[in-house]
Amino acid sequence: MRSVSWEQDALVLVDQTRLPHEVHLLRLTDWRDVVEAIRAMRVRGAPAIGAAGAYAVALAAREAATDPATFQDRLEEAAREIASARPTAVNLRWAVRRVLGRVEVDQSPEANASAILQEAHRIAEEDVEANRRLSQIGAAMIRHGERILTLCNTGSLATVDIGTAFGILRAAHESGKGIHVFACETRPTLQGARLTAWELLRCGIPFHLIPDSAAGWLMARGMVDRVIVGADRIAANGDVANKIGTYSLAVLARHHRIPFWVAAPRSTIDLSTPSGEVIPIESRDPREVTHIGGLPIAPEGTPAWNDAFDVTPAGLVTAIVTDAGIVTPPYKESLRRLVEGAELVRHPS
Amino acid sequence: MRSVSWEQDALVLVDQTRLPHEVHLLRLTDWRDVVEAIRAMRVRGAPAIGAAGAYAVALAAREAATDPATFQDRLEEAAREIASARPTAVNLRWAVRRVLGRVEVDQSPEANASAILQEAHRIAEEDVEANRRLSQIGAAMIRHGERILTLCNTGSLATVDIGTAFGILRAAHESGKGIHVFACETRPTLQGARLTAWELLRCGIPFHLIPDSAAGWLMARGMVDRVIVGADRIAANGDVANKIGTYSLAVLARHHRIPFWVAAPRSTIDLSTPSGEVIPIESRDPREVTHIGGLPIAPEGTPAWNDAFDVTPAGLVTAIVTDAGIVTPPYKESLRRLVEGAELVRHPS
Repeated sequence: MRSVSWEQDALVLVDQTRLPHEVHLLRLTDWRDVVEAIRAMRVRGAPAIGAAGAYAVALAAREAATDPATFQDRLEEAAREIASARPTAVNLRWAVRRVLGRVEVDQSPEANASAILQEAHRIAEEDVEANRRLSQIGAAMIRHGERILTLCNTGSLATVDIGTAFGILRAAHESGKGIHVFACETRPTLQGARLTAWELLRCGIPFHLIPDSAAGWLMARGMVDRVIVGADRIAANGDVANKIGTYSLAVLARHHRIPFWVAAPRSTIDLSTPSGEVIPIESRDPREVTHIGGLPIAPEGTPAWNDAFDVTPAGLVTAIVTDAGIVTPPYKESLRRLVEGAELVRHPS
Repeated sequence: MRSVSWEQDALVLVDQTRLPHEVHLLRLTDWRDVVEAIRAMRVRGAPAIGAAGAYAVALAAREAATDPATFQDRLEEAAREIASARPTAVNLRWAVRRVLGRVEVDQSPEANASAILQEAHRIAEEDVEANRRLSQIGAAMIRHGERILTLCNTGSLATVDIGTAFGILRAAHESGKGIHVFACETRPTLQGARLTAWELLRCGIPFHLIPDSAAGWLMARGMVDRVIVGADRIAANGDVANKIGTYSLAVLARHHRIPFWVAAPRSTIDLSTPSGEVIPIESRDPREVTHIGGLPIAPEGTPAWNDAFDVTPAGLVTAIVTDAGIVTPPYKESLRRLVEGAELVRHPS
């Protein structure tokens, strides 16, 4: 199932805030509604918001093309707003920059809008293909019967399709490896309980949902063979920004000598970010912590802390699984080679 | 506020499943209702269920005293059921055994029932006094301005009154130490969000509620000076059974070189349990994970894992704060001295 698609001149998104209770499709034709959908996590997951952002720029270009005199200014203003809808995942800014790169000054606004839309399509297609490749690459390394712990949602909902960490789980399952998954529920917004459990059930992968705080205890009892998570941004030195709770899992995995994998397409690697220290960490509404499904779980007036992401230092990451292969420490070297090689492959001219 | 009290021949409990939305008092006169209240976590916290269990035996003795011929058998049968209402916390079995120790064969059933009730009162009073002492002892060691992370609820609700880990926080706050608390929400049943936040607000202690998974990230950012948790059972070697998530916090604290304290009255120390490996860990209804407040958060058919407790090995515990002083490793030695000294004090004859 595609979480992000383009149908009849509109961006179609699965509204992830309404899962698992209903599969509700949003049909968006105004880029401002896409920004709202990204901010409100109706579409979430670094690769998915990258593709949605690219399509948002395409919608903005179509709108701006009605007045050639202001086309460039209006497009750039919209692009800035789209790129900053959420700060941590790099895919959003990467995708916006990439589609803007198709604008040519000696081209008509209509032609530029069309070029942007074509580039958004390419980003979406490449994401599916990248996830397919990294899933196969990762799954090939999984041993029979592994019990794999994961966090958040990294499946078809978090990407255009297939998924990253979840893609590996699914490919391993489909190749008959007999895996068992422990899905952390992922408070505060419960992507594990609401989305990953839903995808695991649909794929028929054996699993248990667990409270985030139970991960350490399962490891201590010898019930976890591997941890695989996604990423919102991978810095040049291998530091990984990802859903809050990732860092705790990495420390726990290290304590128990359990391999800790990060799975991400190359679009998540940002060589212009030298280390995790400079990655902006989004703080979201404290009501995400004090309320669940709109209902209060804490007394009125409770102050809450709600960093949506954390940074896992490269030293705790056993391997990064990408669409161009698995990279291992030292990451500064291996990531640079991977990305530079990737650029060569993508633009062979 | 007393969470467990005796008024007009009935056990009065604050129904903790209805907090923070309402303060509802249960007035129980049948020991079977107390067993239900313990199982359903209407009363929870190791010291509180110890006292409630003692009063349940008193109610059972009053009922059994109506037929002297069957008094002893009916009392023992009820006591067995009360003691096994929840398996992990040792205080429940300790309290049941202690009140049964007041039964004398040459005494009338009425006199025995009265002796049991008096012993239950003593347990309740001693718990308040023990918590008062351990709170003062622990608070004296807190430095000005400390930021202290805690889990679950260990306040007046978890004990007869005052609290254990929470008692230390409160005493430190009241002595002007200017502490700040980070309260883990404590999934699945949210004792941190529902109960600890409620007690922190009532006491005016500055705090933030956090998702359990955020603890590691706060530590990495240098925002936590100490972790203090309660205990459901402390084995002879210093291993600590406590709310699920405690073990993860202990590993994270060790990784960040942050002191990890356990606070508990001596009734939580069980020298007859040699190590944590033999402590029974209660597995509770998976619906506690898949539902919140009766509403599903995961898709129908989601299997969930719900161990309610975990075991933290003694090696990760910096200190255990008790009503008779602070003990440090090696615990096998220090705990034995503490408990044997305690027995001498309690029964000087």
